[in-house]
Amino acid sequence: MKILAFESSAKAASVAICGDDGLIAQYWQHSALTHSRTLLAMAEDMFKNLEITIDDIDAVAVALGPGSFTGIRIGTAAAKGIAWGADKPVCPVSTLLAMAHHFMDRGDIVICPVMDARRSQVYNAKFMPRQGELVRLCEDRAISVEQLIDEAKNDEKPYMLVGDGAVMCYNTFSEHGVFCHLAPEPLRLQSAWGVAAAARNTAPQSADDVEPNYIRLSQAERERLERLARQGSSKSVK
Amino acid sequence: MKILAFESSAKAASVAICGDDGLIAQYWQHSALTHSRTLLAMAEDMFKNLEITIDDIDAVAVALGPGSFTGIRIGTAAAKGIAWGADKPVCPVSTLLAMAHHFMDRGDIVICPVMDARRSQVYNAKFMPRQGELVRLCEDRAISVEQLIDEAKNDEKPYMLVGDGAVMCYNTFSEHGVFCHLAPEPLRLQSAWGVAAAARNTAPQSADDVEPNYIRLSQAERERLERLARQGSSKSVK
Repeated sequence: MKILAFESSAKAASVAICGDDGLIAQYWQHSALTHSRTLLAMAEDMFKNLEITIDDIDAVAVALGPGSFTGIRIGTAAAKGIAWGADKPVCPVSTLLAMAHHFMDRGDIVICPVMDARRSQVYNAKFMPRQGELVRLCEDRAISVEQLIDEAKNDEKPYMLVGDGAVMCYNTFSEHGVFCHLAPEPLRLQSAWGVAAAARNTAPQSADDVEPNYIRLSQAERERLERLARQGSSKSVK
Repeated sequence: MKILAFESSAKAASVAICGDDGLIAQYWQHSALTHSRTLLAMAEDMFKNLEITIDDIDAVAVALGPGSFTGIRIGTAAAKGIAWGADKPVCPVSTLLAMAHHFMDRGDIVICPVMDARRSQVYNAKFMPRQGELVRLCEDRAISVEQLIDEAKNDEKPYMLVGDGAVMCYNTFSEHGVFCHLAPEPLRLQSAWGVAAAARNTAPQSADDVEPNYIRLSQAERERLERLARQGSSKSVK
Protein backbone atom coordinates (compact mmCIF):
# COMPACT_ATOMS: atom_id res chain seq x y z
CA MET A 1 0.00 0.00 0.00
CA LYS A 2 1.40 3.39 -1.06
CA ILE A 3 0.46 6.45 1.01
CA LEU A 4 0.84 10.08 -0.02
CA ALA A 5 1.10 12.17 3.17
CA PHE A 6 0.82 15.91 3.85
CA GLU A 7 2.02 17.84 6.91
CA SER A 8 1.49 21.60 7.08
CA SER A 9 0.41 22.23 10.67
CA ALA A 10 3.15 24.74 11.50
CA LYS A 11 5.89 26.73 9.74
CA ALA A 12 7.56 23.61 8.32
CA ALA A 13 5.70 21.75 5.60
CA SER A 14 6.37 18.36 4.06
CA VAL A 15 5.07 15.75 1.69
CA ALA A 16 5.99 12.07 1.85
CA ILE A 17 5.31 8.92 -0.10
CA CYS A 18 5.59 5.68 1.89
CA GLY A 19 5.32 2.09 0.71
CA ASP A 20 5.12 -1.20 2.58
CA ASP A 21 8.90 -1.17 3.13
CA GLY A 22 8.99 2.36 4.53
CA LEU A 23 9.71 5.83 3.20
CA ILE A 24 10.08 6.13 -0.58
CA ALA A 25 10.49 9.90 -0.68
CA GLN A 26 10.06 12.94 1.52
CA TYR A 27 10.29 16.59 0.64
CA TRP A 28 10.52 18.85 3.69
CA GLN A 29 10.70 22.63 3.71
CA HIS A 30 11.01 25.20 6.51
CA SER A 31 11.01 28.56 4.80
CA ALA A 32 9.13 31.83 4.98
CA LEU A 33 6.97 30.85 2.00
CA THR A 34 3.29 30.06 2.54
CA HIS A 35 2.18 26.44 2.34
CA SER A 36 -0.38 27.32 -0.33
CA ARG A 37 2.60 28.19 -2.52
CA THR A 38 4.85 25.21 -1.65
CA LEU A 39 2.83 22.15 -0.57
CA LEU A 40 1.33 21.07 -3.88
CA ALA A 41 4.50 22.10 -5.74
CA MET A 42 6.47 19.68 -3.55
CA ALA A 43 3.98 16.88 -4.24
CA GLU A 44 4.09 17.55 -7.97
CA ASP A 45 7.92 17.51 -7.99
CA MET A 46 7.95 14.20 -6.12
CA PHE A 47 5.57 12.50 -8.54
CA LYS A 48 7.72 13.73 -11.44
CA ASN A 49 11.02 12.66 -9.85
CA LEU A 50 9.68 9.24 -8.84
CA GLU A 51 8.13 8.77 -12.28
CA ILE A 52 4.77 7.85 -10.75
CA THR A 53 1.27 9.31 -10.89
CA ILE A 54 -1.62 9.59 -8.45
CA ASP A 55 -2.86 6.25 -9.87
CA ASP A 56 0.07 4.58 -8.05
CA ILE A 57 -1.17 5.90 -4.69
CA ASP A 58 -3.63 3.91 -2.56
CA ALA A 59 -4.55 6.51 0.07
CA VAL A 60 -3.90 10.14 0.98
CA ALA A 61 -2.93 10.88 4.60
CA VAL A 62 -3.07 14.29 6.21
CA ALA A 63 -2.29 15.91 9.56
CA LEU A 64 -5.74 17.17 10.46
CA GLY A 65 -4.71 19.30 13.40
CA PRO A 66 -4.29 20.73 15.89
CA GLY A 67 -1.97 23.42 14.59
CA SER A 68 -1.92 26.66 12.66
CA PHE A 69 -5.49 27.18 11.45
CA THR A 70 -4.31 28.33 8.02
CA GLY A 71 -1.72 25.55 7.81
CA ILE A 72 -4.08 22.70 8.55
CA ARG A 73 -6.73 24.20 6.29
CA ILE A 74 -4.22 24.19 3.42
CA GLY A 75 -3.09 20.63 4.14
CA THR A 76 -6.62 19.29 4.56
CA ALA A 77 -7.84 21.07 1.43
CA ALA A 78 -4.90 19.69 -0.58
CA ALA A 79 -5.47 16.14 0.66
CA LYS A 80 -9.25 16.27 0.17
CA GLY A 81 -8.91 17.81 -3.29
CA ILE A 82 -6.42 15.24 -4.55
CA ALA A 83 -8.30 12.31 -2.97
CA TRP A 84 -11.67 13.49 -4.24
CA GLY A 85 -10.37 14.11 -7.76
CA ALA A 86 -8.60 10.74 -7.98
CA ASP A 87 -11.22 8.78 -6.04
CA LYS A 88 -8.84 7.76 -3.24
CA PRO A 89 -9.64 7.40 0.46
CA VAL A 90 -8.19 9.78 3.06
CA CYS A 91 -6.49 8.74 6.32
CA PRO A 92 -6.81 11.73 8.66
CA VAL A 93 -4.40 11.68 11.61
CA SER A 94 -3.70 13.83 14.64
CA THR A 95 -0.73 16.16 14.11
CA LEU A 96 0.44 15.27 17.63
CA LEU A 97 0.15 11.50 17.13
CA ALA A 98 2.08 11.79 13.85
CA MET A 99 4.99 13.52 15.63
CA ALA A 100 5.04 10.90 18.38
CA HIS A 101 5.96 8.31 15.73
CA HIS A 102 9.44 9.88 15.59
CA PHE A 103 10.16 8.21 18.95
CA MET A 104 8.55 4.78 18.67
CA ASP A 105 11.88 3.11 19.54
CA ARG A 106 12.61 4.98 22.76
CA GLY A 107 11.96 3.40 26.11
CA ASP A 108 11.47 5.01 29.49
CA ILE A 109 10.15 8.34 28.27
CA VAL A 110 6.84 10.10 27.87
CA ILE A 111 6.63 11.39 24.30
CA CYS A 112 5.29 14.90 24.61
CA PRO A 113 4.50 16.70 21.33
CA VAL A 114 4.03 20.43 21.84
CA MET A 115 2.94 23.01 19.29
CA ASP A 116 2.90 26.74 19.85
CA ALA A 117 -0.83 27.57 20.24
CA ARG A 118 -0.20 31.22 21.27
CA ARG A 119 -2.12 32.78 24.18
CA SER A 120 0.41 31.10 26.56
CA GLN A 121 -0.77 27.64 25.52
CA VAL A 122 0.53 24.67 23.60
CA TYR A 123 -1.37 22.02 21.70
CA ASN A 124 -0.31 18.80 23.35
CA ALA A 125 -0.95 15.12 23.90
CA LYS A 126 1.20 12.46 25.60
CA PHE A 127 2.19 8.99 24.46
CA MET A 128 4.22 6.06 25.72
CA PRO A 129 6.16 3.77 23.38
CA ARG A 130 5.39 0.15 24.23
CA GLN A 131 6.53 -2.86 22.18
CA GLY A 132 6.55 -1.04 18.87
CA GLU A 133 3.17 0.64 19.52
CA LEU A 134 2.21 4.02 20.93
CA VAL A 135 -0.06 4.15 23.98
CA ARG A 136 -2.01 7.40 24.13
CA LEU A 137 -2.02 8.91 27.66
CA CYS A 138 -4.44 11.80 27.03
CA GLU A 139 -6.54 13.36 24.29
CA ASP A 140 -5.27 16.17 22.05
CA ARG A 141 -5.75 19.41 24.00
CA ALA A 142 -4.70 23.03 24.45
CA ILE A 143 -2.88 23.45 27.77
CA SER A 144 -0.67 26.06 29.48
CA VAL A 145 3.04 25.25 29.72
CA GLU A 146 2.82 25.71 33.50
CA GLN A 147 0.11 23.03 33.73
CA LEU A 148 2.21 20.70 31.57
CA ILE A 149 5.18 21.28 33.90
CA ASP A 150 2.99 20.39 36.91
CA GLU A 151 2.07 17.13 35.19
CA ALA A 152 5.72 16.41 34.35
CA LYS A 153 6.69 16.89 38.01
CA ASN A 154 4.26 14.13 38.97
CA ASP A 155 5.29 11.73 36.18
CA GLU A 156 7.99 9.16 36.85
CA LYS A 157 9.44 9.22 33.35
CA PRO A 158 11.08 12.26 31.74
CA TYR A 159 9.28 14.00 28.88
CA MET A 160 10.67 14.01 25.32
CA LEU A 161 9.58 17.36 23.90
CA VAL A 162 8.98 17.31 20.15
CA GLY A 163 7.35 19.79 17.78
CA ASP A 164 7.55 23.46 16.89
CA GLY A 165 6.93 24.34 20.56
CA ALA A 166 9.66 22.03 21.87
CA VAL A 167 12.46 24.59 22.27
CA MET A 168 10.17 27.10 24.02
CA CYS A 169 8.86 24.39 26.39
CA TYR A 170 12.36 22.99 26.99
CA ASN A 171 13.52 26.43 28.11
CA THR A 172 10.51 26.89 30.41
CA PHE A 173 10.88 23.37 31.86
CA SER A 174 14.57 24.14 32.54
CA GLU A 175 13.73 27.48 34.20
CA HIS A 176 11.40 25.53 36.52
CA GLY A 177 14.15 22.98 37.23
CA VAL A 178 12.23 20.13 35.60
CA PHE A 179 14.41 17.64 33.71
CA CYS A 180 13.27 16.76 30.18
CA HIS A 181 14.67 15.78 26.79
CA LEU A 182 14.63 18.06 23.75
CA ALA A 183 14.08 16.08 20.53
CA PRO A 184 17.28 16.07 18.45
CA GLU A 185 17.28 18.34 15.42
CA PRO A 186 16.43 15.82 12.67
CA LEU A 187 13.36 14.60 14.63
CA ARG A 188 12.25 17.83 16.30
CA LEU A 189 9.72 19.25 13.85
CA GLN A 190 6.60 17.79 12.27
CA SER A 191 7.14 15.49 9.27
CA ALA A 192 4.96 13.91 6.61
CA TRP A 193 6.82 10.67 7.35
CA GLY A 194 5.19 10.69 10.80
CA VAL A 195 1.80 11.33 9.20
CA ALA A 196 2.25 8.35 6.86
CA ALA A 197 3.41 6.17 9.76
CA ALA A 198 0.35 7.13 11.85
CA ALA A 199 -1.94 6.57 8.85
CA ARG A 200 -1.05 2.88 8.81
CA ASN A 201 -3.27 2.43 11.88
CA THR A 202 -6.03 4.79 10.70
CA ALA A 203 -9.20 3.68 8.99
CA PRO A 204 -9.45 5.28 5.52
CA GLN A 205 -12.46 7.56 5.05
CA SER A 206 -14.23 9.23 2.18
CA ALA A 207 -12.69 12.64 1.42
CA ASP A 208 -16.16 14.14 1.97
CA ASP A 209 -16.10 13.25 5.67
CA VAL A 210 -12.69 14.72 6.51
CA GLU A 211 -12.69 17.99 8.47
CA PRO A 212 -9.83 19.91 10.13
CA ASN A 213 -9.54 19.54 13.90
CA TYR A 214 -8.83 23.00 15.29
CA ILE A 215 -9.52 22.08 18.95
CA ARG A 216 -9.93 25.76 19.82
CA LEU A 217 -12.08 28.41 18.16
CA SER A 218 -10.25 30.65 15.70
CA GLN A 219 -9.45 34.22 16.72
CA ALA A 220 -12.16 35.53 14.35
CA GLU A 221 -14.78 33.16 15.81
CA ARG A 222 -13.73 34.00 19.37
CA GLU A 223 -13.95 37.74 18.73
CA ARG A 224 -17.32 37.32 17.03
CA LEU A 225 -18.71 35.41 20.02
CA GLU A 226 -17.29 38.00 22.41
CA ARG A 227 -18.89 40.76 20.35
CA LEU A 228 -22.22 38.95 20.31
CA ALA A 229 -21.99 38.40 24.05
CA ARG A 230 -21.26 42.09 24.63
CA GLN A 231 -24.15 43.10 22.35
CA GLY A 232 -26.39 40.65 24.17
CA SER A 233 -25.43 41.95 27.60
CA SER A 234 -25.67 45.62 26.53
CA LYS A 235 -29.13 44.88 25.08
CA SER A 236 -30.24 43.27 28.28
CA VAL A 237 -29.03 46.37 30.21
CA LYS A 238 -31.16 48.54 27.98
CA MET B 1 26.14 30.45 6.17
CA LYS B 2 23.97 28.45 3.76
CA ILE B 3 25.15 24.99 2.75
CA LEU B 4 23.87 22.91 -0.17
CA ALA B 5 24.54 19.24 0.64
CA PHE B 6 24.46 16.08 -1.48
CA GLU B 7 24.21 12.46 -0.29
CA SER B 8 24.21 9.64 -2.86
CA SER B 9 26.47 6.98 -1.34
CA ALA B 10 23.89 4.16 -1.42
CA LYS B 11 20.43 3.46 -2.86
CA ALA B 12 18.83 6.43 -1.07
CA ALA B 13 19.78 9.88 -2.33
CA SER B 14 19.11 13.29 -0.86
CA VAL B 15 19.79 16.97 -1.18
CA ALA B 16 19.56 19.45 1.69
CA ILE B 17 19.93 23.17 2.23
CA CYS B 18 20.91 24.22 5.75
CA GLY B 19 21.25 27.67 7.25
CA ASP B 20 22.63 28.91 10.56
CA ASP B 21 19.39 27.95 12.32
CA GLY B 22 19.27 24.41 10.94
CA LEU B 23 17.61 22.63 8.08
CA ILE B 24 15.81 24.83 5.55
CA ALA B 25 14.82 22.03 3.17
CA GLN B 26 15.59 18.41 2.44
CA TYR B 27 14.50 16.25 -0.45
CA TRP B 28 15.10 12.55 0.15
CA GLN B 29 14.37 9.71 -2.26
CA HIS B 30 14.77 5.94 -2.00
CA SER B 31 13.63 4.57 -5.34
CA ALA B 32 14.92 2.33 -8.07
CA LEU B 33 15.93 5.33 -10.20
CA THR B 34 19.61 6.12 -10.71
CA HIS B 35 21.09 9.08 -8.88
CA SER B 36 22.28 10.56 -12.17
CA ARG B 37 18.61 10.94 -13.05
CA THR B 38 17.33 12.21 -9.67
CA LEU B 39 20.03 14.06 -7.70
CA LEU B 40 20.31 17.27 -9.72
CA ALA B 41 16.56 17.25 -10.44
CA MET B 42 15.95 17.30 -6.66
CA ALA B 43 18.39 20.20 -6.21
CA GLU B 44 16.77 22.15 -9.05
CA ASP B 45 13.27 21.62 -7.59
CA MET B 46 14.45 22.82 -4.18
CA PHE B 47 15.96 26.02 -5.55
CA LYS B 48 12.74 26.70 -7.43
CA ASN B 49 10.47 25.97 -4.45
CA LEU B 50 12.59 28.02 -2.04
CA GLU B 51 12.79 30.86 -4.57
CA ILE B 52 16.56 31.03 -4.22
CA THR B 53 19.51 30.57 -6.60
CA ILE B 54 23.01 29.18 -6.27
CA ASP B 55 24.12 32.77 -5.47
CA ASP B 56 22.37 32.39 -2.09
CA ILE B 57 24.57 29.37 -1.23
CA ASP B 58 27.93 29.81 0.54
CA ALA B 59 29.37 26.30 0.22
CA VAL B 60 28.58 22.93 -1.33
CA ALA B 61 28.94 19.85 0.90
CA VAL B 62 29.17 16.30 -0.34
CA ALA B 63 29.47 12.79 1.07
CA LEU B 64 32.77 11.78 -0.46
CA GLY B 65 32.63 8.11 0.43
CA PRO B 66 32.95 5.36 1.28
CA GLY B 67 29.95 3.88 -0.47
CA SER B 68 28.68 2.75 -3.84
CA PHE B 69 31.41 3.69 -6.33
CA THR B 70 28.87 4.93 -8.87
CA GLY B 71 26.83 6.72 -6.20
CA ILE B 72 29.71 8.70 -4.72
CA ARG B 73 31.04 9.49 -8.19
CA ILE B 74 27.67 11.00 -9.13
CA GLY B 75 27.45 12.99 -5.87
CA THR B 76 31.03 14.22 -6.05
CA ALA B 77 30.69 15.15 -9.73
CA ALA B 78 27.46 17.05 -9.02
CA ALA B 79 28.98 18.94 -6.07
CA LYS B 80 32.24 19.73 -7.91
CA GLY B 81 30.40 20.81 -11.04
CA ILE B 82 28.03 23.18 -9.24
CA ALA B 83 30.78 24.57 -7.00
CA TRP B 84 33.20 25.05 -9.86
CA GLY B 85 30.60 26.71 -12.09
CA ALA B 86 29.40 29.08 -9.36
CA ASP B 87 32.83 29.64 -7.79
CA LYS B 88 31.85 28.20 -4.40
CA PRO B 89 34.03 26.16 -2.03
CA VAL B 90 33.34 22.46 -1.36
CA CYS B 91 33.16 20.83 2.10
CA PRO B 92 33.88 17.13 1.54
CA VAL B 93 32.79 14.86 4.40
CA SER B 94 32.96 11.18 5.22
CA THR B 95 29.71 9.37 4.46
CA LEU B 96 30.09 7.54 7.79
CA LEU B 97 30.74 10.69 9.83
CA ALA B 98 27.70 12.34 8.23
CA MET B 99 25.45 9.46 9.35
CA ALA B 100 26.84 9.58 12.88
CA HIS B 101 25.39 13.10 13.20
CA HIS B 102 21.92 11.51 13.39
CA PHE B 103 22.78 10.41 16.96
CA MET B 104 24.66 13.37 18.42
CA ASP B 105 22.21 13.54 21.33
CA ARG B 106 22.47 9.93 22.49
CA GLY B 107 24.60 8.98 25.46
CA ASP B 108 26.08 5.64 26.43
CA ILE B 109 26.29 4.17 22.96
CA VAL B 110 28.91 3.63 20.28
CA ILE B 111 27.55 5.07 17.03
CA CYS B 112 28.38 2.47 14.40
CA PRO B 113 27.58 3.42 10.79
CA VAL B 114 27.65 0.41 8.48
CA MET B 115 27.29 0.34 4.72
CA ASP B 116 26.99 -2.78 2.62
CA ALA B 117 30.42 -3.09 0.92
CA ARG B 118 29.70 -6.55 -0.59
CA ARG B 119 32.34 -9.31 -0.47
CA SER B 120 31.16 -10.02 3.16
CA GLN B 121 32.35 -6.62 4.33
CA VAL B 122 30.87 -3.35 5.53
CA TYR B 123 32.28 0.14 5.32
CA ASN B 124 32.42 1.28 8.91
CA ALA B 125 33.76 3.72 11.46
CA LYS B 126 32.83 4.23 15.10
CA PHE B 127 32.02 7.41 17.03
CA MET B 128 31.08 8.42 20.55
CA PRO B 129 28.79 11.36 21.26
CA ARG B 130 30.35 13.59 23.91
CA GLN B 131 28.98 16.98 24.98
CA GLY B 132 27.46 17.83 21.62
CA GLU B 133 30.53 16.66 19.67
CA LEU B 134 31.43 13.38 18.00
CA VAL B 135 34.64 11.64 19.06
CA ARG B 136 35.98 9.42 16.29
CA LEU B 137 37.09 6.00 17.58
CA CYS B 138 38.62 4.64 14.36
CA GLU B 139 39.28 5.60 10.75
CA ASP B 140 36.84 4.82 7.92
CA ARG B 141 37.54 1.23 6.89
CA ALA B 142 36.21 -1.92 5.20
CA ILE B 143 35.76 -4.68 7.75
CA SER B 144 33.99 -8.05 7.99
CA VAL B 145 30.80 -8.18 10.07
CA GLU B 146 32.37 -10.97 12.15
CA GLN B 147 35.32 -8.74 13.04
CA LEU B 148 32.92 -5.92 13.96
CA ILE B 149 31.02 -8.33 16.22
CA ASP B 150 34.28 -9.32 17.94
CA GLU B 151 34.97 -5.64 18.62
CA ALA B 152 31.42 -5.12 19.93
CA LYS B 153 31.83 -8.02 22.35
CA ASN B 154 34.84 -6.24 23.87
CA ASP B 155 33.22 -2.80 24.04
CA GLU B 156 31.39 -1.76 27.18
CA LYS B 157 28.73 0.27 25.41
CA PRO B 158 26.16 -1.14 22.97
CA TYR B 159 26.46 -0.27 19.29
CA MET B 160 23.85 1.85 17.49
CA LEU B 161 23.81 0.48 13.94
CA VAL B 162 22.95 3.08 11.30
CA GLY B 163 23.18 3.06 7.51
CA ASP B 164 22.11 0.91 4.59
CA GLY B 165 23.95 -2.06 6.17
CA ALA B 166 22.27 -1.64 9.57
CA VAL B 167 19.48 -4.22 9.20
CA MET B 168 21.86 -6.87 7.83
CA CYS B 169 24.36 -6.23 10.65
CA TYR B 170 21.58 -6.12 13.28
CA ASN B 171 20.43 -9.57 12.19
CA THR B 172 23.98 -10.96 12.26
CA PHE B 173 24.71 -9.38 15.67
CA SER B 174 21.49 -10.97 16.98
CA GLU B 175 22.37 -14.39 15.55
CA HIS B 176 25.67 -14.13 17.47
CA GLY B 177 23.82 -13.13 20.65
CA VAL B 178 25.39 -9.65 20.73
CA PHE B 179 23.06 -6.91 21.96
CA CYS B 180 22.90 -3.78 19.81
CA HIS B 181 20.46 -1.02 18.77
CA LEU B 182 19.03 -0.68 15.28
CA ALA B 183 18.61 2.97 14.28
CA PRO B 184 14.90 3.88 14.13
CA GLU B 185 13.44 4.20 10.66
CA PRO B 186 13.55 7.99 10.21
CA LEU B 187 17.27 8.06 11.14
CA ARG B 188 18.43 4.75 9.68
CA LEU B 189 19.59 5.70 6.21
CA GLN B 190 22.06 8.27 4.97
CA SER B 191 20.81 11.86 4.72
CA ALA B 192 22.02 15.10 3.21
CA TRP B 193 21.08 16.74 6.52
CA GLY B 194 23.88 14.70 8.12
CA VAL B 195 26.28 15.79 5.39
CA ALA B 196 25.42 19.46 5.99
CA ALA B 197 25.79 19.00 9.76
CA ALA B 198 29.23 17.37 9.33
CA ALA B 199 30.27 20.09 6.87
CA ARG B 200 30.01 22.72 9.61
CA ASN B 201 33.26 21.36 11.07
CA THR B 202 34.96 20.78 7.72
CA ALA B 203 37.41 23.21 6.13
CA PRO B 204 36.09 24.35 2.73
CA GLN B 205 38.31 23.43 -0.21
CA SER B 206 38.61 24.34 -3.85
CA ALA B 207 36.40 22.09 -6.00
CA ASP B 208 39.56 21.14 -7.94
CA ASP B 209 41.03 19.36 -4.90
CA VAL B 210 38.00 17.21 -4.04
CA GLU B 211 38.26 13.51 -4.91
CA PRO B 212 35.97 10.58 -4.01
CA ASN B 213 37.18 8.34 -1.21
CA TYR B 214 36.54 4.77 -2.30
CA ILE B 215 38.68 3.15 0.45
CA ARG B 216 38.86 -0.07 -1.57
CA LEU B 217 39.87 -0.60 -5.18
CA SER B 218 36.95 -0.93 -7.58
CA GLN B 219 36.15 -4.36 -8.99
CA ALA B 220 37.54 -3.33 -12.39
CA GLU B 221 40.81 -2.10 -10.85
CA ARG B 222 41.10 -5.21 -8.69
CA GLU B 223 40.58 -7.52 -11.63
CA ARG B 224 43.09 -5.55 -13.71
CA LEU B 225 45.75 -5.85 -10.99
CA GLU B 226 45.03 -9.57 -10.60
CA ARG B 227 45.33 -10.01 -14.35
CA LEU B 228 48.61 -8.08 -14.41
CA ALA B 229 49.89 -10.12 -11.47
CA ARG B 230 49.00 -13.37 -13.26
CA GLN B 231 50.68 -12.14 -16.44
CA GLY B 232 53.74 -11.08 -14.43
CA SER B 233 54.03 -14.42 -12.64
CA SER B 234 53.48 -16.39 -15.84
CA LYS B 235 56.19 -14.29 -17.51
CA SER B 236 58.61 -14.89 -14.66
CA VAL B 237 57.93 -18.65 -14.94
CA LYS B 238 58.90 -18.47 -18.57
